[in-house]
Amino acid sequence: MPAVSAGPEIERLIQLLARLPNLGPRSARRAALFLIKKREAVMAPLAAALQTAMDKVEICRLCGNIDTQNPCAVCSDTRRETSAIVVVADVADLWALERAHAINARYHVLGGTLSPLDGIGPDDLAIDALVKRAHDPAVTEIILALNATVDGQSTAHYITDLLHDAAVKVTRLAHGVPVGGELDYLDEGTLAAAMRSRTPF
Amino acid sequence: MPAVSAGPEIERLIQLLARLPNLGPRSARRAALFLIKKREAVMAPLAAALQTAMDKVEICRLCGNIDTQNPCAVCSDTRRETSAIVVVADVADLWALERAHAINARYHVLGGTLSPLDGIGPDDLAIDALVKRAHDPAVTEIILALNATVDGQSTAHYITDLLHDAAVKVTRLAHGVPVGGELDYLDEGTLAAAMRSRTPF
Repeated sequence: MPAVSAGPEIERLIQLLARLPNLGPRSARRAALFLIKKREAVMAPLAAALQTAMDKVEICRLCGNIDTQNPCAVCSDTRRETSAIVVVADVADLWALERAHAINARYHVLGGTLSPLDGIGPDDLAIDALVKRAHDPAVTEIILALNATVDGQSTAHYITDLLHDAAVKVTRLAHGVPVGGELDYLDEGTLAAAMRSRTPF
Repeated sequence: MPAVSAGPEIERLIQLLARLPNLGPRSARRAALFLIKKREAVMAPLAAALQTAMDKVEICRLCGNIDTQNPCAVCSDTRRETSAIVVVADVADLWALERAHAINARYHVLGGTLSPLDGIGPDDLAIDALVKRAHDPAVTEIILALNATVDGQSTAHYITDLLHDAAVKVTRLAHGVPVGGELDYLDEGTLAAAMRSRTPF
């Protein structure tokens, strides 16, 4: 017996929605019902938007960002600093840094972090391409903007080792108290790091 | 500045995904990236499934269920009991009862519950059609399978009043301890109802 009492077409839609991150079977059923109820307002535009994205979205051949132009809008932007490359694990991290207006530089998307347990090694990530870009004489700084997790930090160490003979400064994001964060809720590692890196007031 | 550093096409896809229930802006961004990465495996089938659902899904003219046939598969199923009609607020509730194999009868989808605070009155629900169906001589029981909430129960009372001159028995789902439920975690109302409706062991 199928999970819903509707045609196989609806069943299939639910199964595909359930593959999206953060949507389990139950929310996928709710999403499918919502879409069917909002046929003109949401379902039709979503079907069209998916088709458009299918047709137009590409992976930037320079940095690995996704965009409808190639090279992407960030790499094509001539007002950006070209001396620094911000290394991120994923496109979502690039978007997060851009939303924060954190820096006006270019990026390099690794496509993940080293994770021996998940079988992800250096060959699975865009590390060779990063090393090549780091040897461009115009590049003077590689900024490692990787998650402060074990995998993120071991990836950072691995890349730093690889770049030891490139004429670039390798930096990483500062550790510290998140803006708006309450000390009482922070872990000891963050507090100790914030204390070590304290700055004049 | 847009929320992501990608083309307006991706921005639009994210905005539409964010309208799905249970998906906020952040999960919509993650879902969009996931779709773009899984272009062939998920994105293309999802676009096709949405289009198919758009083309084929209809609302059953008898019960309000959604299906790719009209009347729906439940209403067309000749092996179902025709003397009882199970009244549900939403198609999701119909699906839940079908998954539970709770009963082999037909349904009537109200399309919501009465909710004066949200401005939902009797005219916004399929109540007239239910009253008409309840007067069919073949129908002997109307089973109110509505949420055990204030809105659900006031809708149940409203319908019961309307049906007082129809030759049908009006019943509702039993209250009690959920199967697998622990008494210590149950609210007092449920425990009291379960005690009142205790059954011989």
